[in-house]
Amino acid sequence: MQVEVMKNILGENDSIAEDNRKFFHDKKIFVLNLMGSPGAGKTSLLEKSIEQLKSKLNLAIIEGDLFTAKDAERIDKLGIPVVQINTMGGCHLDAPMIQKVTNDLDIDSLDAVIIENVGNLVCPAEFELGENKKAVVLSITEGEDKPSKYPLIFKESSLIVLNKIDLLPYLNFDLERVKKELSVMNPRAKIIEVSATTGQGISEFCEWIRNEVEHEAF
Amino acid sequence: MQVEVMKNILGENDSIAEDNRKFFHDKKIFVLNLMGSPGAGKTSLLEKSIEQLKSKLNLAIIEGDLFTAKDAERIDKLGIPVVQINTMGGCHLDAPMIQKVTNDLDIDSLDAVIIENVGNLVCPAEFELGENKKAVVLSITEGEDKPSKYPLIFKESSLIVLNKIDLLPYLNFDLERVKKELSVMNPRAKIIEVSATTGQGISEFCEWIRNEVEHEAF
Repeated sequence: MQVEVMKNILGENDSIAEDNRKFFHDKKIFVLNLMGSPGAGKTSLLEKSIEQLKSKLNLAIIEGDLFTAKDAERIDKLGIPVVQINTMGGCHLDAPMIQKVTNDLDIDSLDAVIIENVGNLVCPAEFELGENKKAVVLSITEGEDKPSKYPLIFKESSLIVLNKIDLLPYLNFDLERVKKELSVMNPRAKIIEVSATTGQGISEFCEWIRNEVEHEAF
Repeated sequence: MQVEVMKNILGENDSIAEDNRKFFHDKKIFVLNLMGSPGAGKTSLLEKSIEQLKSKLNLAIIEGDLFTAKDAERIDKLGIPVVQINTMGGCHLDAPMIQKVTNDLDIDSLDAVIIENVGNLVCPAEFELGENKKAVVLSITEGEDKPSKYPLIFKESSLIVLNKIDLLPYLNFDLERVKKELSVMNPRAKIIEVSATTGQGISEFCEWIRNEVEHEAF
């Protein structure tokens, strides 16, 4: 019975996600669903990237979080539009939540929206939001076994960001082995190494976003 | 309607959790529900601790994971009983899953069972398993803001393990501030600093477990 309920919830979500997708497409907006564990460094990655992106793109951020507006406050300081969604304990964003907040953005002025999902390597991958692409941030401090233990999120992502790469010398983490495993698991995904602390790889992340915005078949 | 369904699911879970609690109590077994993000270091903490605990306690481990048996295989190598639960994509363990696997353990020989929950800082805190105590492992690489962003799991835990403490010199992490925040958020929780890599704090974790086993009012 739980399975049946889950199917209904997902079915309803997918239908609203399609509405969102059509809405954003009509407005010619590229939408990225950015996922990852708690503490993978999603907000830090955005902070660093916004500095480079904001002069070239009209970008807005939708922040998903359980209760606080901490991440939205961090983004707001950078002078780009940001909307906070609080899931009130819920472990992922869903399509109706996104639909509800689109009115809070000056949609017609935007080229791209990045949605930072709730910190969670499981549930967010199951809920379409109406995005063009999914990306996952994996901090290398989380360990080599995460892709094989949480395969769905890595299989569904078009971009895999290996973050906190500056800590590599202090960890037991075989970077080449993990990259190889990821490329077998998801051959079409681009993999980039990033440090939101040192700035390494941030340009590459920004370039990927800008390419996606340009090449999206609007 | 989703809220109503959730209430029913939680109600049913709580009732089976009570059965589990009574079952373990009658068998005089202390049960710990060990939670934390993906990559917080739950399995590594157990590996290090089992070396110290296994000569003093009859201990078994229940491993929760989405698909793989990787963690159970790591524990099995240490020569103590381990049972794997695969949630098949589910983001937390629940009480019926625990009830089902109790027959796979030689229950009458045991003093304690540690249940390693699915790597997730949100959902596991909502589902009682029938445990005596909850503990949460937070890797300091996850960042200072995790307690305030994911309060439930930290409020419900009797023990908070700050792991990967060996990486402190390489991080922007104000340890004293976080410990103070945690002690305000949950004054009854014990907080210990651990490195599963260097072994720091492992004895303290083991002593906490042994104290709980001894002082549990059986």
